[in-house]
Amino acid sequence: MLAENGYGKSGIRLVKIARVGDRHDFRDVTVAVRLEGDFARAHTDGDNSAVLPTDTMKNTVYALAKDHFDRDIESFGLYLTEHFVRNNPPVARARVELSERPWERLTVEGRPHPHAFSRPGGERRTARVTRTRQGALVESGLEDLVLAKSARSGFAGFLKDGFTTLKETGDRILATAVKASWLYKGAPGDFDGAFQGIRRTLLETFAGHDSASVQHTLNAMGEAVLEGHAEVAEVHLSLPNRHHILVDLSPFGLENKNEVFVATEEPFGLIEATLKRG
Amino acid sequence: MLAENGYGKSGIRLVKIARVGDRHDFRDVTVAVRLEGDFARAHTDGDNSAVLPTDTMKNTVYALAKDHFDRDIESFGLYLTEHFVRNNPPVARARVELSERPWERLTVEGRPHPHAFSRPGGERRTARVTRTRQGALVESGLEDLVLAKSARSGFAGFLKDGFTTLKETGDRILATAVKASWLYKGAPGDFDGAFQGIRRTLLETFAGHDSASVQHTLNAMGEAVLEGHAEVAEVHLSLPNRHHILVDLSPFGLENKNEVFVATEEPFGLIEATLKRG
Amino acid sequence: MLAENGYGKSGIRLVKIARVGDRHDFRDVTVAVRLEGDFARAHTDGDNSAVLPTDTMKNTVYALAKDHFDRDIESFGLYLTEHFVRNNPPVARARVELSERPWERLTVEGRPHPHAFSRPGGERRTARVTRTRQGALVESGLEDLVLAKSARSGFAGFLKDGFTTLKETGDRILATAVKASWLYKGAPGDFDGAFQGIRRTLLETFAGHDSASVQHTLNAMGEAVLEGHAEVAEVHLSLPNRHHILVDLSPFGLENKNEVFVATEEPFGLIEATLKRG
Amino acid sequence: MLAENGYGKSGIRLVKIARVGDRHDFRDVTVAVRLEGDFARAHTDGDNSAVLPTDTMKNTVYALAKDHFDRDIESFGLYLTEHFVRNNPPVARARVELSERPWERLTVEGRPHPHAFSRPGGERRTARVTRTRQGALVESGLEDLVLAKSARSGFAGFLKDGFTTLKETGDRILATAVKASWLYKGAPGDFDGAFQGIRRTLLETFAGHDSASVQHTLNAMGEAVLEGHAEVAEVHLSLPNRHHILVDLSPFGLENKNEVFVATEEPFGLIEATLKRG
Repeated sequence: MLAENGYGKSGIRLVKIARVGDRHDFRDVTVAVRLEGDFARAHTDGDNSAVLPTDTMKNTVYALAKDHFDRDIESFGLYLTEHFVRNNPPVARARVELSERPWERLTVEGRPHPHAFSRPGGERRTARVTRTRQGALVESGLEDLVLAKSARSGFAGFLKDGFTTLKETGDRILATAVKASWLYKGAPGDFDGAFQGIRRTLLETFAGHDSASVQHTLNAMGEAVLEGHAEVAEVHLSLPNRHHILVDLSPFGLENKNEVFVATEEPFGLIEATLKRG
Repeated sequence: MLAENGYGKSGIRLVKIARVGDRHDFRDVTVAVRLEGDFARAHTDGDNSAVLPTDTMKNTVYALAKDHFDRDIESFGLYLTEHFVRNNPPVARARVELSERPWERLTVEGRPHPHAFSRPGGERRTARVTRTRQGALVESGLEDLVLAKSARSGFAGFLKDGFTTLKETGDRILATAVKASWLYKGAPGDFDGAFQGIRRTLLETFAGHDSASVQHTLNAMGEAVLEGHAEVAEVHLSLPNRHHILVDLSPFGLENKNEVFVATEEPFGLIEATLKRG
Repeated sequence: MLAENGYGKSGIRLVKIARVGDRHDFRDVTVAVRLEGDFARAHTDGDNSAVLPTDTMKNTVYALAKDHFDRDIESFGLYLTEHFVRNNPPVARARVELSERPWERLTVEGRPHPHAFSRPGGERRTARVTRTRQGALVESGLEDLVLAKSARSGFAGFLKDGFTTLKETGDRILATAVKASWLYKGAPGDFDGAFQGIRRTLLETFAGHDSASVQHTLNAMGEAVLEGHAEVAEVHLSLPNRHHILVDLSPFGLENKNEVFVATEEPFGLIEATLKRG
Repeated sequence: MLAENGYGKSGIRLVKIARVGDRHDFRDVTVAVRLEGDFARAHTDGDNSAVLPTDTMKNTVYALAKDHFDRDIESFGLYLTEHFVRNNPPVARARVELSERPWERLTVEGRPHPHAFSRPGGERRTARVTRTRQGALVESGLEDLVLAKSARSGFAGFLKDGFTTLKETGDRILATAVKASWLYKGAPGDFDGAFQGIRRTLLETFAGHDSASVQHTLNAMGEAVLEGHAEVAEVHLSLPNRHHILVDLSPFGLENKNEVFVATEEPFGLIEATLKRG
């Protein structure tokens, strides 16, 4: 009766200080490991002899981080999945997800400080490496990149029915928290460079687009990634529409010329799509 | 280049007061609507003529709640999806997710109060109805049902490697926040009765099981649901292992006989499986 | 230049399993310790010789919990503060805050289970013990007790000015998350009994009151506590007004007879008061 | 029996787009209003005739934001409190708290974009204006400024007792989320300039200090603010100690030379102090 099953450790909080002379780097990553494979007897008979404890997964992440987390999170994910697949015969598939919180070097008296940092919060860089006995897939991405534009965004010409009260508008705030992920065709030589380029494409397309809807801008962002980055096979975008409601100031004798808004959390629109090469 | 896509409204917060004479019922549901179908031109050309605004979806939920949310959340989900599919030709698939927070009637001077309530927090009852032109699937479930047992739970005989430090134990706290969902073969006549029965099966199996691992108990819970509830086609269980770490009191000259624990949030194990009929 | 200062450890997560024969009790408390006193040289000179590390505070909570947390959280707080004040000459004031999450015993086949529990979430019982060289104050309370009433609540006759758009109403939902704390005149013999009695008074007063405003109901709750519980010297109540907005269904040809509401999180009213004996 | 009391509206989410030609500014503030004064009859008699509804407070914030929120949050808080005190005779004290989330202008093709923005998350700038019939106090501050340093931080020479297990260290990660507020002696001419200068002082002192403890660094930060900014009368600092635990890699045959750490959320130290001019 047991169909799909998997298990692992989530929320492994890893900080690594890398030193080059007096200069430190501060890396901050949350890791999740998940294994799938032949673990049926643990479920049905309580036989744990094939079960690598999730506590061991955690230890492995910390131990391997010492010598093997010295570049991007994608490379560390490739290393970790290879370790788990190679050393555990029952494992058919190992997946490692990494979410990196960026820390910025402080500037003191105009100079970058060697060992003091601030963390802006919000945006995280993500990677998901999935490895089977046949090979590995690398999906990179970002989350919680909060963006807004206050011009060149509208929403009009939509379908109306008996439950429609929304007014058409040619000028609204478009605000979102971008969640994007993309699948590489082959591993790029330089994951950091690829990430920075794709992130820039997402930002610049969002800023420059004449938006007729979230769908419209999402599609433009996805197309720009595929067009500008040959190493990307497909891209997935999830854009919540964080509505900013124009306040009706007319009861107070004031005209609100797209100046004063209520920022709302709930409810929110959610627009999602995957774009692939044709 | 556009592959899968969908859109909708999430976080629609609905409270309905149903009245039978002086006696009120307090229903509290968060609803998410999502439509998939032929919306390509909105993405590629900014043509919104086929797009039902997510604001209209929200209005629809409130308006239809007045006369059609009078039973369980599954029935309301079936009604809503039918509305969206029937009235929107471009829609190939409509999905409505409902998450109900239970409110309990207060007891005052030993009697149930007609219109005062408390909300315990935590556990929520969930339903997901997915409808295509061919028909509807109903998945029911629950989330954040926090459970623990302080006896008859161990973890031993597991695989060891060079990164293993975990000690075997025959007596530990097993704590989790159950997320369960199940697919009905056909709609049961009584969604509320089916839910209460399945919930009781989950609780009683958790309590009574001699647990060799989370996997072992998860499997017992899933099997008990399939065995005891003929209307269920498959059941999915996701059980985080909320580790309770025995505190080492020996530096203070004390012996900790499984009495004092640190409750931890991170990292956590995560065990998931789907069980189907053979 | 150093004025007030204090330090301590927060977020100490303690679970204790108490055993009476086969029957277990599951206690779940978060503890915060804070010390004030003569710690100026640590601030000004980096001299830590008088500083009890917060790590030691944490160890102390776990170690003393083994033999001395066997009753209510108030008694444990009294014990902990006495320990810190007696053993640390620089300490002028020790404060221990305890927040207990209740776990309920599962019922299996109609009988209370000896070692399986569920945690409803939400409401927590709180205690704050503050001790100086002169003696100790005990403040007990509760947080996140979410309540609502759907009748006998209105809000009318209020002040209007040029920014008022709210309509008067004689029938609205009153919903809140009660945060209450009260100071005992002397330690009651039975903290558990006192707590349960005061909690019942809060609930029953909320349910039975004809509410003209949150202020009005808050005051009735506070007065009932003072009148019904001679051991209470003063009571503080903080009641957020969790607005439930009546949905305007008239655009859809429907009349909303106080049936369908939007539950909102932001913005929220916040009403606070302290009541003392005259 | 009614002693202190107050009420107001919290969580008022305000976004304002200010336009200078084609160039927009995006301001994002959460506002809380609280009034104290002669509101006893609302509590005791349900007489709302002196009660300004919290809904009106919310409307007032949006309406006055249109023409009067054109500079820093402190100036807007001064304006709002003056409005509430002047127009509401029962009010003895009005307090407005403002928390601003910074949005950064996007750079596109090397140039600042006129109307596209990103929000880094985390840090917020705060102001609290408290006004009575006698005058106004302005307290400015910041929250959730997450900082870390990976060198020149230790903790040694501390008090030991029977519950001490912490080892002394001359090299640890010091990480915190700064919450700071300061009281101005008189209103500075330029709240923005004062804020930026004080923030820089906090950052640079944190980075440059040889830290013997959190207390030691906190004190240095506070002293630097008082010494460098004559307009500040007192400064309050609240620094959680976000512990980074060195991972013991010795069971795996590895030496951890301050490279690999577990970042923890709970428990956490909390160090607080107020510094005033002597």
